[in-house]
Amino acid sequence: MKVYELIITGGGPAGITAAIYSARKQMDFTILTKDIGGQASLSWEIENYIGYQFITGPDLVEKFIQHIKEFNVDIKENQEVIRISKEGSIFNVKTVKDDYYGKTVIIATGRRPKKLNIKGEEEFRNKGIVYCATCDAPLFRDKEVAVIGGGNSGLDSVLQLSRIARKIYLIEIKNDLTGDKIVIDKIKELEKVEIMPGTEVKGIYGGKFIERIKVKKDGKDIDIKVDGVFIEIGSEPNAEFIDFVEKNEYGEIIVDCKNRTSYPGVFAAGDVTNVFAKQIIVACGEGAKASISSFEYLKYL
Amino acid sequence: MKVYELIITGGGPAGITAAIYSARKQMDFTILTKDIGGQASLSWEIENYIGYQFITGPDLVEKFIQHIKEFNVDIKENQEVIRISKEGSIFNVKTVKDDYYGKTVIIATGRRPKKLNIKGEEEFRNKGIVYCATCDAPLFRDKEVAVIGGGNSGLDSVLQLSRIARKIYLIEIKNDLTGDKIVIDKIKELEKVEIMPGTEVKGIYGGKFIERIKVKKDGKDIDIKVDGVFIEIGSEPNAEFIDFVEKNEYGEIIVDCKNRTSYPGVFAAGDVTNVFAKQIIVACGEGAKASISSFEYLKYL
Repeated sequence: MKVYELIITGGGPAGITAAIYSARKQMDFTILTKDIGGQASLSWEIENYIGYQFITGPDLVEKFIQHIKEFNVDIKENQEVIRISKEGSIFNVKTVKDDYYGKTVIIATGRRPKKLNIKGEEEFRNKGIVYCATCDAPLFRDKEVAVIGGGNSGLDSVLQLSRIARKIYLIEIKNDLTGDKIVIDKIKELEKVEIMPGTEVKGIYGGKFIERIKVKKDGKDIDIKVDGVFIEIGSEPNAEFIDFVEKNEYGEIIVDCKNRTSYPGVFAAGDVTNVFAKQIIVACGEGAKASISSFEYLKYL
Repeated sequence: MKVYELIITGGGPAGITAAIYSARKQMDFTILTKDIGGQASLSWEIENYIGYQFITGPDLVEKFIQHIKEFNVDIKENQEVIRISKEGSIFNVKTVKDDYYGKTVIIATGRRPKKLNIKGEEEFRNKGIVYCATCDAPLFRDKEVAVIGGGNSGLDSVLQLSRIARKIYLIEIKNDLTGDKIVIDKIKELEKVEIMPGTEVKGIYGGKFIERIKVKKDGKDIDIKVDGVFIEIGSEPNAEFIDFVEKNEYGEIIVDCKNRTSYPGVFAAGDVTNVFAKQIIVACGEGAKASISSFEYLKYL
């Protein structure tokens, strides 16, 4: 039974950075991940990864992949983690395919999109409901769409759709959009975008595909004809597979400033944790710290 | 009297990242700094800034500068900070040139090289003593040099010098080198490098320029003929200019996981703080967090 010094779970910015740092220290490790890039690959415009003025998510992920290839890192893709448990002094990491064993673990499994949990959301899945604008926006050329959510990911979807769709309704339940001002200003200048703050989505209706949504604004029910609904109301951490580390009320794994969890030998980094800034460059920094912490911990085993 | 929402002090990776994040939020801010790039510009080989497989410090800094120019940031160079004080509810930041006022401050002033404090160190300053290998290594073509310090910055100096100098003595007081294994292995393969662990430097001697150093190894005094001495024994935080935030035993400013110092409205990021990983990618992440924290704080002023 092979026991690694370190198992990194997740191949987004935090996991990749942890891997590069671990490789440079010649640690005996592997990465288990569903895919490479994580949520970063879903971003359209990235302006705040320092060193690149403007880069798309997929392009930045490609840079990450090139970088990690320099170090001959053993990446096991299509290996989503389903359970982490303790077996004596080592950890068992079970994926959809196999079991792996490590003396330390870094959890960097990121987040997944939240659901609205309204009528029609399940029914029209893959029939007009979209959780990943970068993946599916191109399908809505000259169509009318609604983007639900006025935070940064909703704004990002609107920007992408503005080059593709004919008409975009940006629907936010709060009275103001919450994303970056610079992006909000950009969007306000787009004629094809109708911004609807203070608006709640009540249901999604149609036949074979979505035909309309029902929203409530100023106490009134309104029907809006749309072909697609982009749901961008935030995300949830992928942390259900471990039950022996402390989490906060949002299910995020609690880490200290050295990316240690409450359980010795288990580290975590990036958007799966309670780090208050869910940002690519922050996730990279956290991944580096988690690797260094794991290395320090192993010294005393 | 102009009062900024935010004053960023320092133009290294942490300060630049804080600036880009602040610019995207359209905060009213300025950066006061001695130079742009900070210690990053002194690095020769950077392999662990994620997204670039291999880049020199000056090149990475050039990328940072290009990036910040996109955002029309007001950078005031040649403005080293000499004192930060409170004036009522605002902060006065005094530089070598002028006074500035802000509602919040981010300290990102980084570190400076430590001195050996031995005989000859002051006398031969600019006469063969070097604290910045990237700046001065090219002056030692075909010369014999000593690098004092076997941590990552010492190893980096050796790598740079290996392309330039004729002979390099790598002197480390501890019994082992402490830098990354991958770099140590690289250096062990270089014939012109003589690694001397367990060796203490006692003094630096010469005439107009350095001629030799005296070291102690295994209880014996040894004279080594050298033309240059590269001192790479670590660094100290540039934090003396502020006295009302908590610092640790090394003089580093103590921050929490949100980059808040002990004093409300004062944030800090990067190598000037107690962050346990002094790394470019970590400093960038910390700078982003400090900017977001400052923005959050200003909301409630």
